Order: sequence, then structure tokens, then C-alpha cells
Amino acid sequence: MKPVTADRLSLNTATVKTAWTLAQSIDGCARHGIAGITPWRDVLQDMGVKQAARAIRDAGLTVSGLCRGGWYTAEGALTPQVLDDNKRAVDEAAAIGAECLVMVVGGLADGSRDLIAARSIVEEGLAHTLDYARDVGVPIAIEPLHPMYAADRACINTMGQALDICDRLGSGIGVVVDVYHVWWDPEVHAQIRRAGKERLMGFQVCDWLLETRDMLNDRGMMGDGIINIPDLRAAVEAEGFAGLVDVEIFSSNDWWKRDPDEVLKTSISRSLATC
Amino acid sequence: MKPVTADRLSLNTATVKTAWTLAQSIDGCARHGIAGITPWRDVLQDMGVKQAARAIRDAGLTVSGLCRGGWYTAEGALTPQVLDDNKRAVDEAAAIGAECLVMVVGGLADGSRDLIAARSIVEEGLAHTLDYARDVGVPIAIEPLHPMYAADRACINTMGQALDICDRLGSGIGVVVDVYHVWWDPEVHAQIRRAGKERLMGFQVCDWLLETRDMLNDRGMMGDGIINIPDLRAAVEAEGFAGLVDVEIFSSNDWWKRDPDEVLKTSISRSLATC
Repeated sequence: MKPVTADRLSLNTATVKTAWTLAQSIDGCARHGIAGITPWRDVLQDMGVKQAARAIRDAGLTVSGLCRGGWYTAEGALTPQVLDDNKRAVDEAAAIGAECLVMVVGGLADGSRDLIAARSIVEEGLAHTLDYARDVGVPIAIEPLHPMYAADRACINTMGQALDICDRLGSGIGVVVDVYHVWWDPEVHAQIRRAGKERLMGFQVCDWLLETRDMLNDRGMMGDGIINIPDLRAAVEAEGFAGLVDVEIFSSNDWWKRDPDEVLKTSISRSLATC
Repeated sequence: MKPVTADRLSLNTATVKTAWTLAQSIDGCARHGIAGITPWRDVLQDMGVKQAARAIRDAGLTVSGLCRGGWYTAEGALTPQVLDDNKRAVDEAAAIGAECLVMVVGGLADGSRDLIAARSIVEEGLAHTLDYARDVGVPIAIEPLHPMYAADRACINTMGQALDICDRLGSGIGVVVDVYHVWWDPEVHAQIRRAGKERLMGFQVCDWLLETRDMLNDRGMMGDGIINIPDLRAAVEAEGFAGLVDVEIFSSNDWWKRDPDEVLKTSISRSLATC
């Protein structure tokens, strides 16, 4: 396997979310020779989509994805607001030339225990957004989230489940493989093969810390945890995935407290050594 | 569905682990009209297996299971110590007339990132224990644990994965369905049907709290979280499962701090209202 050098990396802005604006993140990538960026919508909107698109282009960065659309269950049913917001997300992804729009689909509706209903809302919502995204030319990438987020963030929790939806919805929709969410899955290798090149739209890395102190914001730097990242990278690359490796670390206990330049330097060295 | 009255309940000793010995738990069940008990091995050994067996018999309690055998990866390979300890667990289960020995199989070996190797160790270990347990007449019940425990507690994480192992190992082995571990699984209904009556050996309840503050010890009282417990109970009972409903609540933030008699009373009322 080719080593993951900086020119094979993408910076997910969540990794530096407490310290840098999108403009600073773009500059940071340029300064460290990182090839791509994956912005979240909040920092993108703060900067302004047009200005961001220009700055990203001027810096010569690839946009591995835009995080995130989805959250279809936010209002308990598919409302015009939710669907419109997803259309705006598609437009923003197009404006910055993102390789895909990453979908965190939403969990249970407020006060509900009906996971089957939530999944039904999500699939219907994805179908609507996909119709629009096909016209605009933006690939839709479902991100299956770890089952510990099934209630509150995303009720799509395995690659198999995501690909079942992709099978039903047709072309233009695939998955993002985030090692943090899928490493435990006994079917992960089979499902990566099932996905195939066309539907493998992103590959995100961080690490699972043995002593995870917070379910959302205690993800580890690559190498500090127990995920066999090279094994998963080999699997997606064996299918022909040729996108950048996107570093996305939610870490209120550790990396968010550090100097972002140190975080980028460490991400680069650890990607080389452990991804 | 029949309501879950106290005579359909079993007390898992983990629910009162910080307050009561096994003798006190047995008395508590008798006092509250709870029909069964599921001891953990530590409190069983503290009391003495023979004495416990007699006290449980005298109180007329069903023993829904013994928690827990397994942990095959504890020493990085299958050692005589690990296998012997599991034989002792089988003997203890037999001595107290437990309906099954519940297996928490162990996570990654220390310092390892090789989940496939861990799963291989576990399956080999289960095969050894099963050989012995068949002779003694103790059913072996794999408990698939939520994927958030894959690294540190159990690398069997779905019903489907557990049943694949059961298929390979043959008779005398099945699964325990703990709603906390399986509620999120898109395949849970299909896998409960696949398991069938013979392999559904236990049914455990608590609840998943929307704001879970600790990955191990912040489980909720039934009704306080988002699990659709009646839906899962209906599924196992539709297959013919006729065992007791085992209340197992790990709760260092809440229920472990309360008077155990209040915990039992609440478990009874909530089981009736929400299970």
C-alpha cells in the first residue's frame, strides 16, 4: 500500500473546530501541504460560500466532502424546512466542488421509541434529496454511524443497512466509511466489497480509545487507539477508492485543546506511521 | 401479551451489586414476590456455591442464568487458566440449577488491534466450554454485547454473529437477548426469528438513556429511556421464549445509589407499565 503522506490527506474541519475558522483551516492545509479539506456547514456559512469556494480553489485544495446534510427526523416528520435545508446543503456542496455531501441522517424523533419509523422517514428524506442532488450533480454519501448514536444522531448504523438503502434508491448515492463507526462490524469487509468503487465516496480516520470517556467527543488520534486502520484502508483501496484520507477527530478532552498546527503536524506523522 | 408481573421477573444481582450480598438479594426477591434470580459469580462465590444453592432452592426461586463465563481473550491466547475458569463457571451454574451460563466473551487481547484474531480465540474457547457443558447439562448462552464494548468486553456484537457461531458449534448453545445491547440492530427481529425457541435462552431488560454519561454504568430503569421493550419481548415470546424477564441495570449514577428495596419496587412497577 502507498503510505499516507500529506498529499493524500484531507483535513476535516471538525478536527480544529474550536480553534480555527474555515479561512484559517484553508491556510493551515496549505501551510502543511495537506491536499484536501472537508468543511462542516457551520464554518462554511460563517465564511460565506462564495468566498470559501474561491479561497479553497486558490489554495488548490480538493474538497473531499461537505459535512453534513441529513437529520431528517429533526421535526418528527419530513417537513419542508428539513427538505429545503438539505437542498441548500446540496447547493453548498456544488458551490465548493465537494466530492460528496455527507449525510448524518438523524436519530429517533423527539419523544419517540420507534426506530423503524425513524428509518422510514430517513429513507424517504434521502430519496427526496437524491432527486435534487442528481440534477445538481452532487453525490450523496450516507455515513453509517456507530450504533451508540442510533438514538440521538443517526439511525443508519451499519454499512449493510446503508447499502440496502442505496440498492433501493439507485444511482448517485453511496457511503462514507468512517473507521470510528464501522471497525467493530463483523461484516465490514464484506460490505466494503459489496459497496464497490462507485459507492465508496469517502474514508475518514481517527481512533477508538480503549478508555472512551465521552460518547461523542473523545475520539483518538490515529495510533492512540485500537482500530486497525491500514486493514480498513486496504479494503477500500482494493475496491478502487482513490479519494483522500479525511482526518476527523472530535476530541474535547485532548486535541481540541491543543495548538491546531500541532494537531495538523501530528495528524500527518501519525497518518504516515499508522494509517 | 401477558403483563410482566413480579412472578414473571428475575433479579439480576448486578442491579443491586453495590448494596446487597447474594443472601440479601435472595431475601429481597422473596420479600417482593420476584420469581427468579440471576447471580453474578462474584456474589455467588462470596456466599459459597452450596449455601447459595440451598438458599435459592428454599426461597423457591428460578435461576434464570449465571453471569458470567467467557472472557476468553483475557490472556491473549486460550490458556488452561481461562478454560478451567470456564469449567468452574459451568459447574457453578449446574450447582445452582441455572437455566444457562451467560457468556461475555472478552474483547481485544491486551495491546492487540486484531479483532478477527480475538473472535477466533473466542469461538475456539466456546467450543471447549461447550464440550464440557454438554456433559454437565448446562446450556451455554452467548450474550452479544453492544458494539461500543467490542474492544474491551466482548467481540461478539450482534445476534447474527452469535448465531453464526451457534450454527457452527451445534446443540447446547444459544443467545441471551439483552435489549440494551441489541435494540439498535436493524436485523434484530430477523435474528430473533432465526434463533428460535431452543436458542433463546434469556431476556434481559434495562433502558438506553438518551444522555448516556458513562459507557458501562449509566443504564436506565425501564421506561426512562428509548428502547421499545414490549416490541422486543413480543418478538422473543412469539418464538416461544417462556423464561423470566431479567432486570439488569448497571447504574453508578442513579439506581446503585438508592435503597435496593426501592429499586426492586420500581423495577416491578416499571416492568408492568413499560415492558
